[in-house]
Amino acid sequence: MESIAGSEWIEDVSWDDNGLVPAIAQDQESGRALMVAWMNREALRLTAQSGYAVYWSRSRRCLWHKGEESGHRQKVGEIRLDCDGDVVLLQVEQQGGIACHTGHARCFYRTLEGDGWVESEQVLKDPAEIYASKE
Amino acid sequence: MESIAGSEWIEDVSWDDNGLVPAIAQDQESGRALMVAWMNREALRLTAQSGYAVYWSRSRRCLWHKGEESGHRQKVGEIRLDCDGDVVLLQVEQQGGIACHTGHARCFYRTLEGDGWVESEQVLKDPAEIYASKE
Repeated sequence: MESIAGSEWIEDVSWDDNGLVPAIAQDQESGRALMVAWMNREALRLTAQSGYAVYWSRSRRCLWHKGEESGHRQKVGEIRLDCDGDVVLLQVEQQGGIACHTGHARCFYRTLEGDGWVESEQVLKDPAEIYASKE
Repeated sequence: MESIAGSEWIEDVSWDDNGLVPAIAQDQESGRALMVAWMNREALRLTAQSGYAVYWSRSRRCLWHKGEESGHRQKVGEIRLDCDGDVVLLQVEQQGGIACHTGHARCFYRTLEGDGWVESEQVLKDPAEIYASKE
């Protein structure tokens, strides 16, 4: 793995015991919070370097170049860090207008209404269609 | 502790091994992401019930009625859940215009510029002043 020596800013992040930090992706135009995923040092470094969001998939245990299958890449306009250094905030341009693997514009498509979660936003594209090229 | 029986929606949340879920607070007017904190079942139930954000303080190990000391309460307009059920998103009205204990409007006041994090937003109020009444 390439050295990340000299990247002191990477060490300003309060990495958790698994070497991860949660990252929020927010649509820079609409301001809508799109999703939360995880990053390790390499993912954050690649995100900063490439200008496109790269996460760490905890389930697949590998770097996840967001949109590499779906085309729904996130062009990063800004990277922010919170006061404790333990949450990253990305301002992104969501390509294709779909951030969620369910085909919704964003992962936060459920709203609490009374005693239950209501799907308050529609599916924009059938997931089978989004990932068809890889099946 | 009061029973939360009947709150099936609470169990739709994917609580982690510590019984917690991260919650993002977003300013409902400006759309700015303000902060991320943690909730347990009781905090989420109280948030929904009272209409004001209640978190779980991991360091103090107690319910944290946001703003009870500072007056910077968060009036909750909407509660959302993501696709995996493991992140909560609150749309809030930030009373006093300050979400962060550092006196910044929000916790995400640092921006990555080149090789370092730059404080890109000012302190609006001296923290010593915010918490003076309790010192």
